[in-house]
Amino acid sequence: MARVKDFVDTQNFTKEELLSMVEVGRLMKKTIKEGHALNILYHKSLGMIFEQSSTRTRVSFETAMTQLGGHAQYLAPGQIQLGAHESLKDTAMVLSRLVDILMARVQKHESITDLAKYATIPVINGMSDYNHPTQEMGDLITMFEHLPEGKRLEDCKIVFVGDATQVCASLMMITTKMGANFVHLGPKGFQLRENHIKIAEENCKVSGGSFLITEDVDEALKDADFIYTDVWYGLYEAELSEEERMGIFYPKYQVDMDMIKKASPHVKFMHCLPATRGEEVTDEVIDSEYSIVIDQAENRLTAMRALLVYFMDKMEETTKVCHEKLGE
Amino acid sequence: MARVKDFVDTQNFTKEELLSMVEVGRLMKKTIKEGHALNILYHKSLGMIFEQSSTRTRVSFETAMTQLGGHAQYLAPGQIQLGAHESLKDTAMVLSRLVDILMARVQKHESITDLAKYATIPVINGMSDYNHPTQEMGDLITMFEHLPEGKRLEDCKIVFVGDATQVCASLMMITTKMGANFVHLGPKGFQLRENHIKIAEENCKVSGGSFLITEDVDEALKDADFIYTDVWYGLYEAELSEEERMGIFYPKYQVDMDMIKKASPHVKFMHCLPATRGEEVTDEVIDSEYSIVIDQAENRLTAMRALLVYFMDKMEETTKVCHEKLGE
Amino acid sequence: MARVKDFVDTQNFTKEELLSMVEVGRLMKKTIKEGHALNILYHKSLGMIFEQSSTRTRVSFETAMTQLGGHAQYLAPGQIQLGAHESLKDTAMVLSRLVDILMARVQKHESITDLAKYATIPVINGMSDYNHPTQEMGDLITMFEHLPEGKRLEDCKIVFVGDATQVCASLMMITTKMGANFVHLGPKGFQLRENHIKIAEENCKVSGGSFLITEDVDEALKDADFIYTDVWYGLYEAELSEEERMGIFYPKYQVDMDMIKKASPHVKFMHCLPATRGEEVTDEVIDSEYSIVIDQAENRLTAMRALLVYFMDKMEETTKVCHEKLGE
Repeated sequence: MARVKDFVDTQNFTKEELLSMVEVGRLMKKTIKEGHALNILYHKSLGMIFEQSSTRTRVSFETAMTQLGGHAQYLAPGQIQLGAHESLKDTAMVLSRLVDILMARVQKHESITDLAKYATIPVINGMSDYNHPTQEMGDLITMFEHLPEGKRLEDCKIVFVGDATQVCASLMMITTKMGANFVHLGPKGFQLRENHIKIAEENCKVSGGSFLITEDVDEALKDADFIYTDVWYGLYEAELSEEERMGIFYPKYQVDMDMIKKASPHVKFMHCLPATRGEEVTDEVIDSEYSIVIDQAENRLTAMRALLVYFMDKMEETTKVCHEKLGE
Repeated sequence: MARVKDFVDTQNFTKEELLSMVEVGRLMKKTIKEGHALNILYHKSLGMIFEQSSTRTRVSFETAMTQLGGHAQYLAPGQIQLGAHESLKDTAMVLSRLVDILMARVQKHESITDLAKYATIPVINGMSDYNHPTQEMGDLITMFEHLPEGKRLEDCKIVFVGDATQVCASLMMITTKMGANFVHLGPKGFQLRENHIKIAEENCKVSGGSFLITEDVDEALKDADFIYTDVWYGLYEAELSEEERMGIFYPKYQVDMDMIKKASPHVKFMHCLPATRGEEVTDEVIDSEYSIVIDQAENRLTAMRALLVYFMDKMEETTKVCHEKLGE
Repeated sequence: MARVKDFVDTQNFTKEELLSMVEVGRLMKKTIKEGHALNILYHKSLGMIFEQSSTRTRVSFETAMTQLGGHAQYLAPGQIQLGAHESLKDTAMVLSRLVDILMARVQKHESITDLAKYATIPVINGMSDYNHPTQEMGDLITMFEHLPEGKRLEDCKIVFVGDATQVCASLMMITTKMGANFVHLGPKGFQLRENHIKIAEENCKVSGGSFLITEDVDEALKDADFIYTDVWYGLYEAELSEEERMGIFYPKYQVDMDMIKKASPHVKFMHCLPATRGEEVTDEVIDSEYSIVIDQAENRLTAMRALLVYFMDKMEETTKVCHEKLGE
């Protein structure tokens, strides 16, 4: 079976393919942490198009390329406009000749699918208004690193609390794909929608996982292994004022120590960051021993390395080189 | 004879010097396409000053430096202002100590000549309101790659259609320098001016080439080997509104299939990009088999590598290393 | 004694520690000038946060990282806001996992001390409203390179003329730390303040140096070995209009040839740049043989290399490698 050229949506990949990315990601993390240099993407160039600014995504990709012997070019918001002055098709075709691989953070999901369609090189989705698949991969790696003792991911319950952002949708996609048990705890009107439910159903049918969308806090959090939240101000077009969002989500959907106590004693707290402390999460929780948000941020980098290697078709070489460096 | 320090204007170079850049550019292209790494500019830094934003020029230079083992620093519009807060002389002298080579895209041609004058390191003109010499080199390489069978460049007819932009002037300079036959097909008031005609005359006297400026479509296009166009909205100060420019150039100067049919059957269509599809060129032409605009865009990179190597005085080393890598 | 993690203030270091940075800086400068490549920071990433734009500081760091085999990421003003959307603490903790070392140019000194406090990686102060320690290190190296024949730095008189900017304060700190004789020649109201005087006193007590703050031009300049000035428009909040600043400082505090003549015959003129020619310094002085401002600008790069190596704990390795490359 041919490798899919682009990383636009984790739904385009099988559980096994995604797990192979996790595996190479963890292997490279170990190799680099032990001080070994890798030159898997020696002298290669990643073009990074940002229609919206970003810290974690941009820095992760840029560090990843440096660690692999290549270079990431940062095309900032305003420096390149997809489909404005020049047709997106022309931009995609031209950049395909000038760099080796592309990533883009886009306003509209259609921009990333169009880029992937017209580019002849691999295209990675660095977040759209629909999904955030590089975040999914980092989160997946983080959950594997913090699995409750003796438990498989398939046996875990992962609860997303709050607004159905693209990060919420993405967490649903990756957890149901893996066969885990996903819950969205959020108020009606801000819950995952029909199109998401259809994906969750399809994923669970294949994987054996489950999903639930609810307003019932106790039911949602009972035995939860991971609690995850994101900002309340709705990204892109639907941005809410502070007053509006507090009216909708506060205090019921704020992750505080009461929520933590309703979950499993070994529960871990996750957040894609940046966090608005005092809104979706309290200082007490995000700074607690339950919180794994910094490990999670670090695994953005772990994921980027894996994705770059996978889509540049360097999986075998990377695995071989890492094992050699590690003396395994 | 001493090498000229800067690449401000192709007029400062002989045909033979320019052809030596083409040759090393094509050699490096072949070497890199075959998967070999070059470290000709290992750990060297290129400073890139952009008074106006650019995609192709910036990305080409940045990729070129990465491929040669060095790094390009992007000084975006607003991050550095030539001759504003600090005198251009001071900027030039300071940067000469902090990087190894400079390029600049400037508003006024005088800025690039002043940079070259005060800098003690090589300075490359990344486009001014007067000319666009790195584009010339990429276009020259592209024409060599797409020469009609059995024809030398000196025997070719190259027709620029539309507004006398700096790209039009540059195409005139490089083609007449090479001894080819250049035509500017454009409306009076938007044709190459006296200063350009003087250069064309001088070049043709040395090279044996010819030039013509005309409003006669049939005469211009008869037996044309290359048709080239650029946007109609006039860069920099003289920017025209859509209504104005359509009134002046449309439909007579739009490159459409009728124009293509008036030319040689093997004619190739070129454009420096970005294109405003539906204005200076139709979708039908730019997406046709006549169009070589994507190859042309790729050769911006081919040209940048050659220029970097030439002006960093690495011609011999590069040639030697490439032949070794290629096993020639 | 444990190495201090961050370079926030030269006051946190002993004279000997600072001199060891100077020494390694000069050694690396020699090694690189002789054409040797160093890979001391191979594949390492420096995150550069700029709350205000900068040419010299940014370009110096970026070139330094390239020369050492690593890469510097430029986070431009507006691309990352310390303590705005995300808490500074979260930003510091996250970036500590994504890059290897951080530098920041900040609006408020508190931002750099907070970054250093929360980051688990080294943090370098690229200028705040309080001080400019990387400038201090470059200036120190420059003074060593241009010492009057037969004189030690401890015997030199260094006169800062004009407004008590953070560069003035910094020059006071480094010169009194070294045991030299520092003078601030500036009008009352624009002289170094109580907090600075306290530092100067403490430094001189340890080092045997001296300091003086005065409005007396003749006394200040008598036997001066170095004259240093900076812009008059006060950085950050207290920016003065041209009329205001000319009223305060002109003509008495302009460094012109009359001032130069009052100093030692071998006096050298220094300026952190950018200069406003015609205000704090005349063309005649800055372009004269007394001026070492371009050498000084180059030594920003010399200093950055040294600081990167020192705070990445690579002093021994660097010294060893340089001596090997130089065949010493």
